[in-house]
Amino acid sequence: MGEPDVIKEDLAQQLYGLVERIFPFPRSITGNGVRQTLREIQRLLPALVIHEVPSGTRAFDWVVPDEWNIRDAYVLDETGTRVIDWRKNNLHVVSYSTPVDAEMSLRELDQHLHSLPDQPEAIPYVTSYYERRWGFCVAHNQRTRLKDCRYRVVIDSRLEPGSLTYGELIIPGEEPSEILLSTYTCHPSLANDNVSGLAVTTFLARGLLEQPRRRHTYRFVFVPETIGAITYLSRNLAEMKRHVIAGFAVTCVGDDRSYSFLSSRKGDSLADRVALHVLKHLHPDFVQYTYQDRGSDERQYCAPGVDLPVASVMRSKYGAYPEYHSSLDDLSLVTPAGLQGSYDVLRRCMECIEANEYLRVTVLCEPQLGRRGLYPTLSNNHPGHQVRELRNLIACCDGTRTLLGIADKLNLPMWDLIPLAETLKGHGLLVASGPHSRKDI
Amino acid sequence: MGEPDVIKEDLAQQLYGLVERIFPFPRSITGNGVRQTLREIQRLLPALVIHEVPSGTRAFDWVVPDEWNIRDAYVLDETGTRVIDWRKNNLHVVSYSTPVDAEMSLRELDQHLHSLPDQPEAIPYVTSYYERRWGFCVAHNQRTRLKDCRYRVVIDSRLEPGSLTYGELIIPGEEPSEILLSTYTCHPSLANDNVSGLAVTTFLARGLLEQPRRRHTYRFVFVPETIGAITYLSRNLAEMKRHVIAGFAVTCVGDDRSYSFLSSRKGDSLADRVALHVLKHLHPDFVQYTYQDRGSDERQYCAPGVDLPVASVMRSKYGAYPEYHSSLDDLSLVTPAGLQGSYDVLRRCMECIEANEYLRVTVLCEPQLGRRGLYPTLSNNHPGHQVRELRNLIACCDGTRTLLGIADKLNLPMWDLIPLAETLKGHGLLVASGPHSRKDI
Amino acid sequence: MGEPDVIKEDLAQQLYGLVERIFPFPRSITGNGVRQTLREIQRLLPALVIHEVPSGTRAFDWVVPDEWNIRDAYVLDETGTRVIDWRKNNLHVVSYSTPVDAEMSLRELDQHLHSLPDQPEAIPYVTSYYERRWGFCVAHNQRTRLKDCRYRVVIDSRLEPGSLTYGELIIPGEEPSEILLSTYTCHPSLANDNVSGLAVTTFLARGLLEQPRRRHTYRFVFVPETIGAITYLSRNLAEMKRHVIAGFAVTCVGDDRSYSFLSSRKGDSLADRVALHVLKHLHPDFVQYTYQDRGSDERQYCAPGVDLPVASVMRSKYGAYPEYHSSLDDLSLVTPAGLQGSYDVLRRCMECIEANEYLRVTVLCEPQLGRRGLYPTLSNNHPGHQVRELRNLIACCDGTRTLLGIADKLNLPMWDLIPLAETLKGHGLLVASGPHSRKDI
Repeated sequence: MGEPDVIKEDLAQQLYGLVERIFPFPRSITGNGVRQTLREIQRLLPALVIHEVPSGTRAFDWVVPDEWNIRDAYVLDETGTRVIDWRKNNLHVVSYSTPVDAEMSLRELDQHLHSLPDQPEAIPYVTSYYERRWGFCVAHNQRTRLKDCRYRVVIDSRLEPGSLTYGELIIPGEEPSEILLSTYTCHPSLANDNVSGLAVTTFLARGLLEQPRRRHTYRFVFVPETIGAITYLSRNLAEMKRHVIAGFAVTCVGDDRSYSFLSSRKGDSLADRVALHVLKHLHPDFVQYTYQDRGSDERQYCAPGVDLPVASVMRSKYGAYPEYHSSLDDLSLVTPAGLQGSYDVLRRCMECIEANEYLRVTVLCEPQLGRRGLYPTLSNNHPGHQVRELRNLIACCDGTRTLLGIADKLNLPMWDLIPLAETLKGHGLLVASGPHSRKDI
Repeated sequence: MGEPDVIKEDLAQQLYGLVERIFPFPRSITGNGVRQTLREIQRLLPALVIHEVPSGTRAFDWVVPDEWNIRDAYVLDETGTRVIDWRKNNLHVVSYSTPVDAEMSLRELDQHLHSLPDQPEAIPYVTSYYERRWGFCVAHNQRTRLKDCRYRVVIDSRLEPGSLTYGELIIPGEEPSEILLSTYTCHPSLANDNVSGLAVTTFLARGLLEQPRRRHTYRFVFVPETIGAITYLSRNLAEMKRHVIAGFAVTCVGDDRSYSFLSSRKGDSLADRVALHVLKHLHPDFVQYTYQDRGSDERQYCAPGVDLPVASVMRSKYGAYPEYHSSLDDLSLVTPAGLQGSYDVLRRCMECIEANEYLRVTVLCEPQLGRRGLYPTLSNNHPGHQVRELRNLIACCDGTRTLLGIADKLNLPMWDLIPLAETLKGHGLLVASGPHSRKDI
Repeated sequence: MGEPDVIKEDLAQQLYGLVERIFPFPRSITGNGVRQTLREIQRLLPALVIHEVPSGTRAFDWVVPDEWNIRDAYVLDETGTRVIDWRKNNLHVVSYSTPVDAEMSLRELDQHLHSLPDQPEAIPYVTSYYERRWGFCVAHNQRTRLKDCRYRVVIDSRLEPGSLTYGELIIPGEEPSEILLSTYTCHPSLANDNVSGLAVTTFLARGLLEQPRRRHTYRFVFVPETIGAITYLSRNLAEMKRHVIAGFAVTCVGDDRSYSFLSSRKGDSLADRVALHVLKHLHPDFVQYTYQDRGSDERQYCAPGVDLPVASVMRSKYGAYPEYHSSLDDLSLVTPAGLQGSYDVLRRCMECIEANEYLRVTVLCEPQLGRRGLYPTLSNNHPGHQVRELRNLIACCDGTRTLLGIADKLNLPMWDLIPLAETLKGHGLLVASGPHSRKDI
């Protein structure tokens, strides 16, 4: 927040550096690519706990699937040349492809190929988690140039009982109330979606660990999308429903073209209100989506009966940028400034939640600000902008509004009011007004 | 709803045929014209019960008036020619005219004549139910051409204790909750206002009788306007307040120029919401009126303390079309297509009310649609429009909304969601969520 | 309200006459100028009670300051000429200036001068109530023309323990519920701000005293701004919280350029609703301010914990006209018509509050208006505008709305509905529907 620019630049570079390191790992919803990713994150967050959930474990309406690992995959032409080579880009193999080692004609092979005619240079990202099949993904231009010959097709994968891996970090605060940050680990070499989310979430956790105090507890969750979030919820739902007051699904936070907001299902949670507040003041041209545009783990966190207050702040939203789910979503799409911008917005969200409380003025009628040096003593010395804000803040502190609500009413960024509230508290003119329902904070 | 077009054409013709048959009967708020009309309807609805309420019966602030019948009425000129002849058009006599048989000058006669200078070819429709007088209604052009001579004036009417006649048909459903359909029988040869309402209401009852099952009970009421509705309410109010969840005043449903909606007094009843929903999706250019524009029996059904949830779906609303309350509102104004359109809208309203219920998803987090064949197994096979609707439907089924509320939230016609809800219920993924207040359904 | 024009003209002149009489008195937050003003008002309101509160008395966060009086003040040049003379305009001395009698250079003197470079002919209005200093206010053109010579500077003032003076008039009504009218007495020769308020408030009290009956009790308060309102509240808050249902801070009600409305803190009190209703119908082009634009005693009346329902109806609002707080706010700015317009709006507000009550129709269904002579007996005699209003009024009287709420719903001035409601009450068709919370009236 208040870091000098030098350090900020450094943070932007650190964010991008982490993106570069974990971009190449062959992630899927299970397997060693996820473990490798979490171990890299653990180097920055040593307290991260890595959990393994055995295949076959039930999770609400779902079952943890077999674990998938891949060592190599390629297609050889008649000359023995690797015309498709997984080692060059792990998007080349349909995720969860069953093993294959066979010779076949182009015609047979083509039935297992996926490409994007409208983006002929892009390799698409395709998965088949719950139906056993195999396939390769290629640029459409490459596909149409394949010779009509015999090919040897090899996918050296294993799909067998193992476990689903996820990371979890609880950073305790002074109160049991929790802020949830969840990001997904299952997408392979796709930079904005969602290596960016892994990097931003990691550094948000680091930032919080460096803070001298935290009012709330923070729950960081690194899970494979959908099945991972469902599995995590099946193990932690009761506790989360008791404690989580706001949450953010961190995804697509790496490019620098726009800011996006996607609401929680109910749309009026603290997470929604604080994210809208921060975006309105920092990036008023942000794109606002509704819950009907959802597509990531808010689908689970906000599902009926789960009902956690989870919203998303993004840069270019999944599904809404042309490089989405293809090899064009690469390291050139994500920028240090893009990552830093997302980090800053989410930090502001947390700063606001930390400072949010019901406030009540301690005296009846207006306090005499002049004798406390907070107001000019000569009537024609016009009280400045800040004195006006101070008096408006006092007028709003009737115990029925939080500081966030007051900031929204006064149409001021909450971070302008936080130091004023501290000054008035120091003079004994304001006090926190409780207790209120934790949900209303 | 799902009838083939051939049958639909047939229905439109049947509707128009009934209009033609009952158009000529000399109706008023009491008397044999009403009885003749109800007997004709009884041929299509044999279970219709015809009630007689004696003159002098108290009904809230009102008293059932004497019964009025008319056999003939005319004005003879010096030559014995019928210059005004009730047999040619029953609008020629002011309804509830006292008997007269007298000779008089043109000047005397003219004081009893009513015409429309702005519509010089139209015979106006005039009544004097509660003040004893007599009068004739004529085209203004005819009035100005009357010779200055002696006339013989005859109205062969009787106005004496008798009874007020109304029809009632209760079609039982599986539940005691009721849908009210009320239409008025007192207007003589006026086609849109309201022979059309009699025809559409009659065939709505026939349609419901042909259904294999009905969740709700249906109460069809054919009454003279105002005094009839008040009399009916004075006999049935307690029961109706207990059971009626939605009602429609059926009036002016025969021309094909526009659709109109007039809200209930409170404006947010199930009848209002469902009618607005149906019109928004079927005829989005409908004209929306408020309760301040009211003019028919919603005045009684929605009166303070009565408070029944009654709205109106109309074609050209009473008072809002040039032919209103004159001989121009004749059989050429009403069309088979106009009647059919009203019938279809009201049928959709009933279909929506029948299918409306609170819904709740049975699993936590999203259900796994793929293993039920409801979702593609390969990630790049884009889920179609219907899969998106299915998932949005599930996300809305948290037990706090009815299917109508969900359809409004998703901005989809409820009839698109009904089969999806049935599919999900078949898979055990959705259940009705009750009990809720009957009023909220 | 219903006065003939002759008397109205007379009232406008009386209002302006009072303004002329009290304009010259040397008012401040304490001292004899205030007493002189209240005695002049007492000539019109003999029942006005004048209270004295000793210096040093605590009032919430404040203390009543020493009393300030001034007999003379001037600046003599070398020739003995009064180049600044308080007797010419009492704005020439900074209010609460400490005594001084000294010779000094222009340079020394200039450090005690205040002027307005942008309005070089205007003498500014400056106060220093809580910091001891002295000063003179002059037109900027005069200031720049002062010769560089020795000056003798005299302020013959006393600032010593005494008392704060305020006036209070309680006009009893049939009910203990109260309407508060508060205006401030501390501004010296400034006509719109706020000699106008003193005059309009005085004549509003006279008007109410002349009424044969008053439903509510009226509390008139003439206090120095801020410290006076705080002192008054510290003595009367409990009683006022129990009884006050609406209040108005009367200020800047004398010019004739515009009407302004400033809401209470919560914005939805009876005072807000009635003032908006009256302005909307009488002066729809009024300027609407929010509580954030506040600046007078609503700051105290509406403070958190005080929470009285006080709004302001003004002409040109303090701070929003160029002559504000300078010698340009003189008798030429205020007009008889300007004062009368404010008086009329506030009278209408009181008329509406007096007539406001929950209403309920006594019969089920529509009453039969025809037999009571309230509705035409022949159907083609179109019921007029008033009959339509009568029926709409009846349809709204369900016991859940007050007459003000009904008027707003029907978008009619409440004074059109008051006689209709009286007529219906006379026929036994409407009754007041209570009891409701006093606050909701």
